[in-house]
Amino acid sequence: MTFDPVELFDKSPFHRWLGCEVVRMDAEEVVLRLPFRDEFVGDPDHPGYHGGVLGALIDVAGTFAVIAVAEQDCITVDYRVDFLRPAVPGPLVARAHSVKTGRTLGVAEAHVNDEDGNTVAVGRVSLYILRPTS
Amino acid sequence: MTFDPVELFDKSPFHRWLGCEVVRMDAEEVVLRLPFRDEFVGDPDHPGYHGGVLGALIDVAGTFAVIAVAEQDCITVDYRVDFLRPAVPGPLVARAHSVKTGRTLGVAEAHVNDEDGNTVAVGRVSLYILRPTS
Amino acid sequence: MTFDPVELFDKSPFHRWLGCEVVRMDAEEVVLRLPFRDEFVGDPDHPGYHGGVLGALIDVAGTFAVIAVAEQDCITVDYRVDFLRPAVPGPLVARAHSVKTGRTLGVAEAHVNDEDGNTVAVGRVSLYILRPTS
Amino acid sequence: MTFDPVELFDKSPFHRWLGCEVVRMDAEEVVLRLPFRDEFVGDPDHPGYHGGVLGALIDVAGTFAVIAVAEQDCITVDYRVDFLRPAVPGPLVARAHSVKTGRTLGVAEAHVNDEDGNTVAVGRVSLYILRPTS
Repeated sequence: MTFDPVELFDKSPFHRWLGCEVVRMDAEEVVLRLPFRDEFVGDPDHPGYHGGVLGALIDVAGTFAVIAVAEQDCITVDYRVDFLRPAVPGPLVARAHSVKTGRTLGVAEAHVNDEDGNTVAVGRVSLYILRPTS
Repeated sequence: MTFDPVELFDKSPFHRWLGCEVVRMDAEEVVLRLPFRDEFVGDPDHPGYHGGVLGALIDVAGTFAVIAVAEQDCITVDYRVDFLRPAVPGPLVARAHSVKTGRTLGVAEAHVNDEDGNTVAVGRVSLYILRPTS
Repeated sequence: MTFDPVELFDKSPFHRWLGCEVVRMDAEEVVLRLPFRDEFVGDPDHPGYHGGVLGALIDVAGTFAVIAVAEQDCITVDYRVDFLRPAVPGPLVARAHSVKTGRTLGVAEAHVNDEDGNTVAVGRVSLYILRPTS
Repeated sequence: MTFDPVELFDKSPFHRWLGCEVVRMDAEEVVLRLPFRDEFVGDPDHPGYHGGVLGALIDVAGTFAVIAVAEQDCITVDYRVDFLRPAVPGPLVARAHSVKTGRTLGVAEAHVNDEDGNTVAVGRVSLYILRPTS
């Protein structure tokens, strides 16, 4: 039986709540799309995404980039997100890839673009790979 | 007119969506409470909070820790979250304080505890302070 | 035979090169002292420590904070350092403690103070614990 | 008079002490070379670079990537380094570029390769740009 990362992705209540959709998910790259929702606005005086949404999206994309390579479930050790410019209302696309996936640890790189292709946030996720003990 | 960080906090659609409540918010400390919701579960096979929720909570708490000191709105430059143990279902409490708030930059330290008092995640947030140009 | 973290510390050519000295090293806390050297200056127009020295000091202190708890050698997975104020010439003191040390992973918190007690940098280090395979 | 980042780089006692050499330094990319020295070894039982050296190299390369774009001196707000594999004795090459350089803040991305081209560490640096007040 082959491991299917999309199946694991689709089981998650949090992914559904956030509303992110899988565009691509394989060992080379993970691409997610996030439609805008009014609930994502941090400050109504400057409409746009709250940073916590971008961080969560980077965590999700980076985690699955390593999962897709390791073909095992993983838990996040830590992640960091750097904000480059305001993320205005509109759909976002997150892209992530594994920088290194070893036996027990993995590191993924992720960035989030707005619909004009501007990068609004970049991030990196460290993961612990849940290898089955045989 | 005095600056009220709670008023700024309460205006945010994202804060309402996440459901976090202010327990304390002043220049010394920010304490937020987050009730558990089924939508926060990352993986239904291991019920508990998705890391993206904890990261967002750290971002929110850390940001307002600096806002409460600066008495100005701020934008997040970057944040990092380290996960210490699984966050099982139940309410969470996030505590944050300003480590250093200067004229243009601020750094806050935050941690999230479960209802038994175990720290499930720690984080640090860097902020840019939006000083009015006079 | 008991594990002695100071013995492991003293073997390191890098620690000698940097010139950091152990003030305290046990499971509760690691305290290191770093005398100032002219070679640590980043920019001669603004004499003071280069950030890379502070980062290295945080890495060393945080790593040994987890080593002292785990009683095993560790390798650094990642570290982050936040700079709070310029570190002017004079000795520095780094303090670190384990925030969580599990079976395979550890997280340490560290900060660096100048001789007036001002915190010049804070950081956090994630480590992988090299448990012997028996 | 044109701004020359290499001139600023060459003035630094810390850069000389570390021994890193400029291979390329312009708005598009910064490339530094670091010859190996025995003093860089963290643990004599596993000869190779101490992580603190790699972190410092990432800080230096990332800082000058933003300086070369901003054409102004900068101070590091924070940096993070992720270690991917042991860095064995031999020269290292660090490459960095500006991800975003605005008016007051900049973010750089950096990675360090060994002489076989393997990436041993990646990092990201946030900077505050010292614009002259006119």
